[in-house]
Amino acid sequence: MYKSLSICDFTPKEEIETRLEGLRKRMALEDISFTVILQNVDLFYFTGTVQKGVLIVPADQPPFFFVEKSMYRAGMESPLEIIPIKKDKDIGSILSDKNIIRGRGGMELDVLPVTLFERWKSILGHDNFVDVSPLIKDLRLIKSAFEIAQIIKSGQIISHVFQKAKEIIREGMREVDIDAALVAEMRKINHQGFLRMRGFNQEMMCGYVTQGYSATISSNADVPISGFGLSPAIGQGSSVNVVKGGVPVIVDFGGGYNGYITDETRVYAVDELKDIFLKGYQVSREIIEEIMGFAREGVDATEIFAKALGRVKAAELEKYFMGHGEGQVSFVGHGLGLEINELPVITPRHKTILKEGMVFAFEPKFIFPNEGAVGIEVDFIVRKDGLQRVTDSPIDIIYV
Amino acid sequence: MYKSLSICDFTPKEEIETRLEGLRKRMALEDISFTVILQNVDLFYFTGTVQKGVLIVPADQPPFFFVEKSMYRAGMESPLEIIPIKKDKDIGSILSDKNIIRGRGGMELDVLPVTLFERWKSILGHDNFVDVSPLIKDLRLIKSAFEIAQIIKSGQIISHVFQKAKEIIREGMREVDIDAALVAEMRKINHQGFLRMRGFNQEMMCGYVTQGYSATISSNADVPISGFGLSPAIGQGSSVNVVKGGVPVIVDFGGGYNGYITDETRVYAVDELKDIFLKGYQVSREIIEEIMGFAREGVDATEIFAKALGRVKAAELEKYFMGHGEGQVSFVGHGLGLEINELPVITPRHKTILKEGMVFAFEPKFIFPNEGAVGIEVDFIVRKDGLQRVTDSPIDIIYV
Repeated sequence: MYKSLSICDFTPKEEIETRLEGLRKRMALEDISFTVILQNVDLFYFTGTVQKGVLIVPADQPPFFFVEKSMYRAGMESPLEIIPIKKDKDIGSILSDKNIIRGRGGMELDVLPVTLFERWKSILGHDNFVDVSPLIKDLRLIKSAFEIAQIIKSGQIISHVFQKAKEIIREGMREVDIDAALVAEMRKINHQGFLRMRGFNQEMMCGYVTQGYSATISSNADVPISGFGLSPAIGQGSSVNVVKGGVPVIVDFGGGYNGYITDETRVYAVDELKDIFLKGYQVSREIIEEIMGFAREGVDATEIFAKALGRVKAAELEKYFMGHGEGQVSFVGHGLGLEINELPVITPRHKTILKEGMVFAFEPKFIFPNEGAVGIEVDFIVRKDGLQRVTDSPIDIIYV
Repeated sequence: MYKSLSICDFTPKEEIETRLEGLRKRMALEDISFTVILQNVDLFYFTGTVQKGVLIVPADQPPFFFVEKSMYRAGMESPLEIIPIKKDKDIGSILSDKNIIRGRGGMELDVLPVTLFERWKSILGHDNFVDVSPLIKDLRLIKSAFEIAQIIKSGQIISHVFQKAKEIIREGMREVDIDAALVAEMRKINHQGFLRMRGFNQEMMCGYVTQGYSATISSNADVPISGFGLSPAIGQGSSVNVVKGGVPVIVDFGGGYNGYITDETRVYAVDELKDIFLKGYQVSREIIEEIMGFAREGVDATEIFAKALGRVKAAELEKYFMGHGEGQVSFVGHGLGLEINELPVITPRHKTILKEGMVFAFEPKFIFPNEGAVGIEVDFIVRKDGLQRVTDSPIDIIYV
């Protein structure tokens, strides 16, 4: 029964081994003797399953995968040997005679809450820890063939949504009703149900349908367009604003398949768009076409940002690029994988040399205060000789 | 435009003031000189808005609400005075001459990641902090009339879902297709889009449609029924399992309105249920009817659990109550509010005397390995003279 309900591939054993080896290599460079993995996403990456448990990775020995529950699922999904435990505190005594918990330990200190950190220091009887998340992020930056296959399937979910949106969006409809219909369409073709974003207070939805004023209001989120939402409690996402002629309807959706996230945006319109939006759309499109012409392994991400900004400046749209006023963000692209905010970031703030297997969303967008927003977002896989699109969904304005 | 898109009430000024006063009172008892509020949900509770910012609550002065972005939304939504900042590190110098950052500080150490905690210690030039979250949870335990009004509206969303489910569920349908349709129905009547659960690694969806085998598989989540999900990456939620006759279809949905969460479960069936499920359903129902007869302000939550367990034992269903084997959980109810895992917990593990204004989900459920699950979940508001249901949705088995 278990097998018949499993529609996604399990992470292959060799894949898990390669990842663990990548982590150990990075640990050695930082003189980390052992790493403690607790966060859901990292656990999935290194074990192939997301259970209540902990993975301890010594620098020089096979890993210890302790599982509290579900043992049953862990056994089905993970190629690692599983050590059953009743309570996390049992781990201290199991490991105490193995000479593993010594020297500098690594923990995911960017996400691990303080009280849990204190608890683990006490369980392990050790208090010398550094943040291992930068190493994990660096490792996860390059996607394997297996991962890219999952990402392509995740992208197919978005392509389907963009097709359905053409049938669904009509003048006078509320953003949230379009959102409801599109999220249901995604789920019906096996969207995983939610998306993950790393970090404290990071929250997101699977879909954002926004247009006009509601697309111009910024939020606490570090994104160019977050939507007005339905209440001050969740000040993001689709709102009750209705679709009007001449103003772009922004459809920004996140695919999710076997953990892997994709994130693209298209513009829909009920009538010919106002000139300012057409201009913004055209510049977004030129930026995307330009990057597809030159970006490849070896290119610096800051150069991509600079070229995009060059086109924006030439069009005198700088004030509106990637937000307006307090809402302006300093990137035009972000990495994708098991989390929606992975590396690389396409920003002038830090240099990243593109490498085969990196995957990122690229989203030149313009926000015109009070008027509305326009832009395109596409996902790219970095190859030696260029960029490969994740989806084959056209990027034209879609008139409905 | 802002006002016309706002469909939920903003948190009234007096409400915010009462909450801050409640926090200060608890801080005084614990000798906490100031509290730093950073988490989204707590920020919303104390400010009425969720922005990138921080609220500093001194024991003996009005609060300081620093906002990085969105200033615009914060100004619209919060009755508090707002202090604009460019970067969080500006706060240290603003506060340095005010004699506020002294003595024991309070921070939300149950959710605040280690690296952020270190950053804030450095920004504030202070390193004497205790976990203030138990105080906040205690304060949030009793809901105001305003909060209960939001909860009732949240419950109306669930009632709607349960009605629609009768039209939608049919033999042979996949759980995830039913889920897709019901989540869309919720969203169309302004469900907020996602639910919040406090704590590290806590993840959840708005809906769980599970039946038969897939309802019996446990997960990392501390819940009796979590579903099989669609991949090992997210091992919870609806699956591709199809609805069959004689086996209960569990529909467990979470309403969300203006931040406030409700959480109820109903059983649907395409043919007469097998005897074991009918028996489990009947015991669940009797447990709920019994609690409605005796629980009120002053009753101990451990007594509620004990009475429920008494009925379960009399029916010889103890092995299946609230999970089976490794999946068994030790509670039969949990508090509701801005997060789905608030206080009180209805468990034998700790005494809680019920008080007017507490709100909790009560969910006697039975999981029969390989066979399926059955149960009912209803939300209650504690009143002086009894329990008030949050929804008026009937709890009968719904034959479709």
